[in-house]
Amino acid sequence: MIEQLQRLPGVGPKTAQRLALHIIKRSEDEVKALAQALIEAKKQVGLCQVCFHLSAESVCDICRNPNRDKTTLCVVADSRDVIALEKTREYRGNYHVLGGVISPMDGIGPEQLHVEQLVRRVSQQKIQEVILAISPSVEGETTTLYVGQLLKPFTKVTRIAFGLPMGGDLEYADEVTLARALEGRRELD
Amino acid sequence: MIEQLQRLPGVGPKTAQRLALHIIKRSEDEVKALAQALIEAKKQVGLCQVCFHLSAESVCDICRNPNRDKTTLCVVADSRDVIALEKTREYRGNYHVLGGVISPMDGIGPEQLHVEQLVRRVSQQKIQEVILAISPSVEGETTTLYVGQLLKPFTKVTRIAFGLPMGGDLEYADEVTLARALEGRRELD
Repeated sequence: MIEQLQRLPGVGPKTAQRLALHIIKRSEDEVKALAQALIEAKKQVGLCQVCFHLSAESVCDICRNPNRDKTTLCVVADSRDVIALEKTREYRGNYHVLGGVISPMDGIGPEQLHVEQLVRRVSQQKIQEVILAISPSVEGETTTLYVGQLLKPFTKVTRIAFGLPMGGDLEYADEVTLARALEGRRELD
Repeated sequence: MIEQLQRLPGVGPKTAQRLALHIIKRSEDEVKALAQALIEAKKQVGLCQVCFHLSAESVCDICRNPNRDKTTLCVVADSRDVIALEKTREYRGNYHVLGGVISPMDGIGPEQLHVEQLVRRVSQQKIQEVILAISPSVEGETTTLYVGQLLKPFTKVTRIAFGLPMGGDLEYADEVTLARALEGRRELD
């Protein structure tokens, strides 16, 4: 059990041991309920056929919601990013989850991601804007530029802003962030 | 000595004691050199007459540098921000240090800052762009908007970008930063 638990992200040998001891102390029914929950969740949760966000149904809640703006697509790397963006309560459009970023070092090219489906979606539907919301790592930048070039013939393509985080102090920002904040300056309303 | 050292920022009772013990162990000459250095620095370093950055001369190195673009001014709250921006090696214009941000709670209004001198500078010189580079706190926002309104009649006024810091992960960004990153999105080149 410790060996299995250690494979979870963020769980080292000590945490795995603590979890294992805790599980052993609980009643057999409780342990069965936990094990069953893992199997059920794995069985039920798949990917939305439209946007590839995690979903228990074949089409996810966001894609089925008629109140959401279907003319705007936000492209993200991962389902976790959808959850983060939904928490802002600012975005009312739909999503497209790529399932990762382009990373030749790890053998991940556009074919391993949901890029083809994205191009098909944008070329066939009336999408007025695609917002690329991919984290600014080297792989993220590559992905943004690659996907952007593919989509530009069909619609307006924007990307989220990079700069100082809110509450961030100029003095503590790293140099690249400061340089991007300067470069990305915009006229005051 | 411990009492005096404790008044320094970031120095608590324990650090003050450690510093004090270290100083006592050193030779009399070394201690004199340290004490003299403090007095000399305080005596020599004042504010640049032009931009109010810290300077040993009446006009600072940046303002005297003929290679810098005199038509662009970057407005910051503090001399520390000048140092941070200089480290990026991206900015080639001049600065104006306000000496703080507007904070009615602390009794700091525009009169306590170098705002009047900034308006005079911008109205009398050929400034093509003023970049407001003030950290995004509540007071910083107030200062940005106030100073921006004052300068707009004379020149183009921009502000640095707010959004995801470089290397930052969408998932770990706070909601306000994400919302600003979405709001501040820009078209892909």
